[in-house]
Order: sequence, then C-alpha cells, then structure tokens
Amino acid sequence: MEEHRRETFEVLYSEYREDDAKMSYRVEVLHVEDTPFQKLMMVKSETYGTMMILDGFVQVTEKDEFIYHEMICHVPFSVNPNIKRVLIIGGGDGGTAREVARYGTVESIDMVEIDEAVVKACKKYIPQTAAVFSGEPRLNLRFEDGLAFARNAGDKSYDLIIVDSTDPEGPGESLFTAEFYRDCHRILSDEGILINQHESAFYSEERVQMKEAHKKLREIFGIAKVYGFNIPSYASGYWYFGFASKNYDPVEDHKQAEWEKLGLSTKYYNSEIHEASFALPNYVKEILESV
Amino acid sequence: MEEHRRETFEVLYSEYREDDAKMSYRVEVLHVEDTPFQKLMMVKSETYGTMMILDGFVQVTEKDEFIYHEMICHVPFSVNPNIKRVLIIGGGDGGTAREVARYGTVESIDMVEIDEAVVKACKKYIPQTAAVFSGEPRLNLRFEDGLAFARNAGDKSYDLIIVDSTDPEGPGESLFTAEFYRDCHRILSDEGILINQHESAFYSEERVQMKEAHKKLREIFGIAKVYGFNIPSYASGYWYFGFASKNYDPVEDHKQAEWEKLGLSTKYYNSEIHEASFALPNYVKEILESV
Repeated sequence: MEEHRRETFEVLYSEYREDDAKMSYRVEVLHVEDTPFQKLMMVKSETYGTMMILDGFVQVTEKDEFIYHEMICHVPFSVNPNIKRVLIIGGGDGGTAREVARYGTVESIDMVEIDEAVVKACKKYIPQTAAVFSGEPRLNLRFEDGLAFARNAGDKSYDLIIVDSTDPEGPGESLFTAEFYRDCHRILSDEGILINQHESAFYSEERVQMKEAHKKLREIFGIAKVYGFNIPSYASGYWYFGFASKNYDPVEDHKQAEWEKLGLSTKYYNSEIHEASFALPNYVKEILESV
Repeated sequence: MEEHRRETFEVLYSEYREDDAKMSYRVEVLHVEDTPFQKLMMVKSETYGTMMILDGFVQVTEKDEFIYHEMICHVPFSVNPNIKRVLIIGGGDGGTAREVARYGTVESIDMVEIDEAVVKACKKYIPQTAAVFSGEPRLNLRFEDGLAFARNAGDKSYDLIIVDSTDPEGPGESLFTAEFYRDCHRILSDEGILINQHESAFYSEERVQMKEAHKKLREIFGIAKVYGFNIPSYASGYWYFGFASKNYDPVEDHKQAEWEKLGLSTKYYNSEIHEASFALPNYVKEILESV
C-alpha cells in the first residue's frame, strides 16, 4: 500500500495578470528585503530556476532571461554595428550588460542603477546574469537615479541607451516620462539608438502603459518603433521593447550580413527574428496608432 | 468604517504548465459533462469571457480565440487564394469554420468532429464561434472519428485540411499519428495544404509533442514548416501550427496582394504577421532540426 505524506508546506508565489487571473509558481524563498526603493525577493522554482521579483513582478528568471536580454541588445547592434559608447539605465541583474559586453566595438558601458541592493542580490543569487559585474573593465557601474543622470550628463554622448527598467510604478516611473526621453535624445549621438522596456498589449494595465510610452517617444524621436518577443514569465507571454532613433530604421537599416559575420551564438535572436519582431498584430497596431 | 464581507466562495480553475507552475482563473462554472470522449467544462471568467476546457486544458476563450482562428485559417488562404474544398478535423467550437466561411471561393466545408457534445455546448455557451453551425449552407458537419474519416475518404480531394485538434492525449491522439498524416496527404489535391495544431516549444511536455509531430510531417510532406503566434490563454503564451503541403512554400508563395484585395477585416492576422510567424527563435529551430 502506498504511503501518503500527511503534512506539507507549499510556498506559492502568484503574480496577477488581472484581478481574476494569475500565474503561480511553487518556490523556495531565498531572500526578502525592503530596499530604499522597492520590495526585493529572490525565490527558486524548479522549472524557472532563480527568479528575482521586484514590487510583486517577476523581473528575471534563470530559465528565460536569455530571451529578454538577447532581444534588448542584439537588435540595436544589428542596426548599428559600430556602437562604441553605451549607457544602460537600470538593468541591475546584469543580463543586459553581459550581452552588450560581447561586442568588441564597445569602448565603454556606463550603467546607472538606482538600487544597489538589486546588484548585490543578483551577484549572490543569479551569477548567470551578474557575473559581468566582476572583471569587465569597460563597465562603469554607478548607483544613481537614471533621470538625474541623464539630466546632468552634460556633453556626454552615447551611441546606444538601453532603458532596462521596471514598470512605470515605483522607481521605474520617472524612466517613462517625456522629460527623461528628451534628455536621452539630447545625449544620443546622431547615430544613436534608444531601446526601452515598453510593456505589453494584451492585459489592461500594461496596454495603457505601452500606449503612453509610445506616444511620448513618437513626439520626441524621428523614428519610434515597437518590437515584441515571446517570454513566458512575463504577462501574456509576449513583451515589447521600443526602438527609437534619430536616423536609423530598425528594419530598413538592418545590417544582417555584418551582424552574422560576428559569429555570436544566440539562443533566441537571429536575423529573421529581428525583422519578424517588428511585425505587429492588428490589435497592437491599433493601440499604437490611436495615440 | 469599511465593512468586510466575512464569507465568500471563490472558484479557481488552474491549468498546470509544469508540476510547479500554473495559471489560474477565477470563474463561474456553467457546465460540466463527461462526454463519451472527454471531460468537458464551460466556465466564465470576467477577463476571458466564456472558456471551454477539455480534459483540463483551455481550448477556447471568448477573449483570445480570434488569434488562434485567424492564424489557422488566413495563412493557408493567403498562400492559395483559390481554395474550394475544405476539410476541418476537430474544431467543434466552430471558430475555424467561421473564418473559412468568410471566403467566397470556398464551395464546401466538410467538418468532422468526434464529439457532438462539444458542438452542442458551444452552440449554447459560445455563439461567438458556434453561430456558424446555423445557416452556413456550405458546411457539412458530421460526428465521426477523424482518423477513420480520412482513411475511408475514398476519392475525395481537398485543397485544404485543417486539423484543429486537442493535444495528443485522449481523442486528439490519433490525429498526431503518421497514419493519419499519410491519409491526409493522399486526399489532398496537388495544390493542397495541411494545417495542424502543432503544440509549443517552451515547456517540457509540449516540446516533445511538437518535435514528434514535425518529425512525422517532414517525412510525409515535401514541405513542412511551423509557424507561431502569441495567444495568452495557451501555455507559455505562444503556440504553433504546422504548414505542410506538396508544392507551396508558405513564405515564397505568399500571395500578399491577392489576399489584401479581398479586404477581410482581421484583428491579429496581417501580411507582415504572415511572414513573421514563420521566423523561429534559435532554440525552437534546434528542437525542430534535431528530429
């Protein structure tokens, strides 16, 4: 006869998509901290590996972070293969810097993360993304408000700014303002590209945020597009980045052959995915065109 | 002082992605039935509207069924705009037939659904998809095993076969066999296209099923491709259909202008999405190429 266990403790982490729909993960809690900026949790799931949760939203999981970080980085580098000076705002887990650091053309990576606790926790719990913080001489990491940094950047000039932020609530809020986007525009070179976390189109809250971000970027940049990717740990399984620039169109100026010559190995991104990611379903186009 | 309700009944429907990860919906249960073939449930969610669940998996929701049904139908019609004879295997909710019936070129739609209970329940609870069962004179609906129908189809010839099945467990299992695909190949015209429900790539179980299906189709058809779409109510938010044919390549033979001339209004599908949906991430390519 089979024996049944009579007692168990099961910790479920649940993330709400809407008030009546949620995704839940059985986890072990590794770390809980109220930082000066947000509530930080590190949990471990069998399926997803270590997951970082900020203010109740999964930011990074070991299993699918490669999708997010490849798409935030290789798209702009395939449009301008001569990027030298990079600014990353946010991105405290290190995944974005890790991908950027793969390019030999890059001379400097300024990284401005508001919350030192995030970097500390990622170094301890997610070396898969955070290992870049040790021994990458081009990386200048500072703990500072991204909005203030961009405002006070003086005559700094970047070829690529990546805004790898949380949602526009809490510390990420100022990184979705027109004021911030204007400062980014000012400190971008003529060849410059801005990539930003652009929310999602299916559920009600993210849809509004996506629309708002697009409206502002379109007013400030000559070219403002949106591209998507399938990331299972994010709401609806599909998330978007914005691609804004003064002169480059991400599809017309896609330099496929030059990028492929670099021979970088990737698990999600490839040249067909690059162009495909800018094709948007009609209901998403309508959301963006209605601004 | 605010009054709090002391009692509540909350019904949560949960669908497991893996043993330790699940998606849950707060629902009202409308209908539960053990049919001769499967367990059928109709539930209502505020966010997703009415949802049909078969053997524990969401098949259709009012909110996002348009994505599935547009992608299963408009892709083949944009490759061959002269489709006349259509066979639908499964698809008891009616959504696939509804989209096929929008084409004036179509002369007959044979539909073979094994489970009459599904059609009955959808007529009652999801008229959004099932209204096609009333008053579409080209539709010949029969309740029969799809495998047996294809085997005994004699000299019938179809320009398009759509296999709109459940997963390869329960009544959908025979619709993932090489025997069934060979029968489909036999009753397809030289211009014929086979579209089938092709599972998904991220979670372990669907990944194996996707690989198996592709292996068989590639052995039997000259052309066997896979295309994807973002559907939030399905595991990982991304699902795939197979496109198999004797002569048509879905991208090289894409007849964009002809399809656009029809002026069909769609909420997900468009010509850019058509081509983009065949671009696969590297990790998905690897799964398919490893067969």
